[in-house]
Amino acid sequence: MSQVRVHNLSISLDGFGTGEDLSFEAPFGHAGQRLHGWMFATGFGRAMFGGSGGGEGLDNAFARRHQDDDIGAEIMGRGKFWPLSGPWPDLGTEQEWRGWWGPNPPFHTPVFVLTHHPRPSIEMEGGTVFHFIDASPADALALAREAAGGRDVRIGGGPTTVGEFLAADLIDVMHVVQVPVLLGRGVRLWDGLEGLEDRYDIEAVASPSGVVHLTFTRR
Amino acid sequence: MSQVRVHNLSISLDGFGTGEDLSFEAPFGHAGQRLHGWMFATGFGRAMFGGSGGGEGLDNAFARRHQDDDIGAEIMGRGKFWPLSGPWPDLGTEQEWRGWWGPNPPFHTPVFVLTHHPRPSIEMEGGTVFHFIDASPADALALAREAAGGRDVRIGGGPTTVGEFLAADLIDVMHVVQVPVLLGRGVRLWDGLEGLEDRYDIEAVASPSGVVHLTFTRR
Repeated sequence: MSQVRVHNLSISLDGFGTGEDLSFEAPFGHAGQRLHGWMFATGFGRAMFGGSGGGEGLDNAFARRHQDDDIGAEIMGRGKFWPLSGPWPDLGTEQEWRGWWGPNPPFHTPVFVLTHHPRPSIEMEGGTVFHFIDASPADALALAREAAGGRDVRIGGGPTTVGEFLAADLIDVMHVVQVPVLLGRGVRLWDGLEGLEDRYDIEAVASPSGVVHLTFTRR
Repeated sequence: MSQVRVHNLSISLDGFGTGEDLSFEAPFGHAGQRLHGWMFATGFGRAMFGGSGGGEGLDNAFARRHQDDDIGAEIMGRGKFWPLSGPWPDLGTEQEWRGWWGPNPPFHTPVFVLTHHPRPSIEMEGGTVFHFIDASPADALALAREAAGGRDVRIGGGPTTVGEFLAADLIDVMHVVQVPVLLGRGVRLWDGLEGLEDRYDIEAVASPSGVVHLTFTRR
């Protein structure tokens, strides 16, 4: 049975998975790069944007699980694809927003973007196809499972989307990275999830880099 | 120079230092004993209430710092001493509430209880004296430092009190224990402390018990 997985979901000590004031200049708002600095220091993070080098230690071992061969599709929230809410503006085909990731995004699978404003799919280089759907977590997962062809489905974030899938009890494995910063404001991951520990075995591993890797495995 | 220290401050993964619905039957409200189970499994925790045995590992090593010989006074919030707010009821001398800790509380020093309703001090066995003061964090600390006679001052909690001392930048060393439960509601430790990492070096150590010890050392 294929699994539904979350990887590299970075949160602050005070539980925020993204900051306030998201924009094209600041996709994580006032959080800046603080939540993901640990990842960009790993070999995985460097390679994701065409770089080389980077750490091969604990953080990298966890990070690489994000993109293993078992992943056949991703589901992401609209906020991960585009930082503003409301209908899509008509920018014309030339100016159309295609995500943050350049012409060859690091997904290489179908990606389902949850939005109340569906629009035509966008096919990118390297196998990534963005589909824009207005669907419940369960319905989106059914579509993604079908697209994944028996492989696993990654819930790619952000925190609101992951929280909704947790609340609907649709996640099998979750890897959260707690970064030692206090953002003070933004979008919390943990709201509305009282008693989540009853459904998951939780392990914690502190990294020499200062982050703590938390893994949740459904019982 | 004496230090101002916090030890064994237990919080949930979602950052709550105590639950909701505090009462005499449930001093941590709906959190029950979930936040402190790790401590009661240690030799330190067992001895605190007259027991013996208990773990001698990582959790115990951290826990024992709470009560070392360097501590000369404690400051605690009213909610740690008595779970209800408002004026003290007149229960008569015989029925007077003297805290949760029995006739010989595990403090053995002066303890300053922050309250908007001052009342006469209470002298207990074993050196603990409860003083009830209406004071700002800085003024309370001045009193506690004087009473501590050059030794360290412990800020004993709860989360509201520790948060106020952090906001006033009065804490030198803080040990927080993150327990893998999601309480969903209660009193958060981290509210209003955006950017705290700029003032502290933060270390994380994961324990085999499942909790994560976070230490904050002022720069």
